[in-house]
Amino acid sequence: MKNFKLEVSYLGTNYCGFQRQLNGTSVQELLEKAIFEVTKEQTKITASGRTDAGVHAYSQVVNFLSASRVPALKMPIALNQHLPDDIRVLNCEIVDLNFNARKSAKRKTYIYKIFNGETLSPFDLGRKWHVKHPLDLREMQKFCDIILGKHDFRCCMASGSSVKDTVREIYDVKVEKSGDDITFSVTANGFLYNMVRILVGSMVEVGAHKRKAEGFARALAEGKRAEAGRTAPACGLYLKNVEYI
Amino acid sequence: MKNFKLEVSYLGTNYCGFQRQLNGTSVQELLEKAIFEVTKEQTKITASGRTDAGVHAYSQVVNFLSASRVPALKMPIALNQHLPDDIRVLNCEIVDLNFNARKSAKRKTYIYKIFNGETLSPFDLGRKWHVKHPLDLREMQKFCDIILGKHDFRCCMASGSSVKDTVREIYDVKVEKSGDDITFSVTANGFLYNMVRILVGSMVEVGAHKRKAEGFARALAEGKRAEAGRTAPACGLYLKNVEYI
Repeated sequence: MKNFKLEVSYLGTNYCGFQRQLNGTSVQELLEKAIFEVTKEQTKITASGRTDAGVHAYSQVVNFLSASRVPALKMPIALNQHLPDDIRVLNCEIVDLNFNARKSAKRKTYIYKIFNGETLSPFDLGRKWHVKHPLDLREMQKFCDIILGKHDFRCCMASGSSVKDTVREIYDVKVEKSGDDITFSVTANGFLYNMVRILVGSMVEVGAHKRKAEGFARALAEGKRAEAGRTAPACGLYLKNVEYI
Repeated sequence: MKNFKLEVSYLGTNYCGFQRQLNGTSVQELLEKAIFEVTKEQTKITASGRTDAGVHAYSQVVNFLSASRVPALKMPIALNQHLPDDIRVLNCEIVDLNFNARKSAKRKTYIYKIFNGETLSPFDLGRKWHVKHPLDLREMQKFCDIILGKHDFRCCMASGSSVKDTVREIYDVKVEKSGDDITFSVTANGFLYNMVRILVGSMVEVGAHKRKAEGFARALAEGKRAEAGRTAPACGLYLKNVEYI
């Protein structure tokens, strides 16, 4: 048995998310089908984490066990022949049998793209969140300063999630503006369900002066979902990369 | 009667092209429908030129005559409410009654995007031409030097076109590489049908050492379609802007 690690990029627009679901086509399902076509083995892949419907990935990491003799170097081309064009395997390597794409992940980086102008370009459709009202970048930067570091992010977890340990550490977070584009990027040791989208939703409310950046420290301390902002749309979110070391 | 000039951007992927056709939905048809919804007048718009199925526009220019009292400044928002998201009116101004988006155009710029790496990103799907074989940039630059200036571009016109004056002047043309991306851009007083795509197809054959850059001077002189290269795919082509004055 060998442990194959894949780096995968996808445009999330046409999928019900990464994880297999009954009510739509998932990235996982198509990857497992492609692996079957290439290896003739039924496998179950493990991803660094799920991404929701409409969320994109520049570089998602998955692994699977297989006895396949297809060399790692040829695996991307072989798999891509059996995948739709909006899902691409970028890289493959054989890794230690102990490697687990989810459990071994040390750091993940997400970026979130906002367009803050009048008219969203057709080229950015499904790829950026269109926020029309003015946003105060300085306040949003204050918000980033507040969430940096180790916190209990329970208030930024979609209700219904059953995760118990809700403490996560944000190593790096910033918000930058270039023309009408605002890009939020965040690196952490892990993320709760919907955490990035709830952080972005909260940050945009801060930028619109609907809430104070300083007030978010209290939301974190109180840990109630209702204290945080609304969940930002999926289409602006990109899993940028996963680090293992 | 007033003459409304619109600047329009669209993603060409879902359309049969700019011009009205029986066998598909065109950008023109949807613009005229939206104008009808806003002005309650049946109009026929004039564009700077047609774009083929799958060809994109950052800034296409059209004009139409109307008695509408909707102020130019409000026209984009009004029209966009009646247009699909992949077609956007970016600007509107009232211009002289003599202005004709096609006849008054002085210069047009197209860009063509090529991805010259192993795996096309899902984010570039339908937006770049994927050329896998190595391309010699210096030879392609020589090709640009040869086509610069005033030439009879008959060999770069799709067969079947009935245009008689096939002389066009290229004011500016360049090809640039950044990582695996190659961008060709060309500004001229006008273009024949399929001219940019045939130029790009020829340039790529030059880059692949399938033909000599110098040999293209003869293709121009002889004026036979068969002497030029194949037509590059529509998806890499973008109408960048149209200049008037």
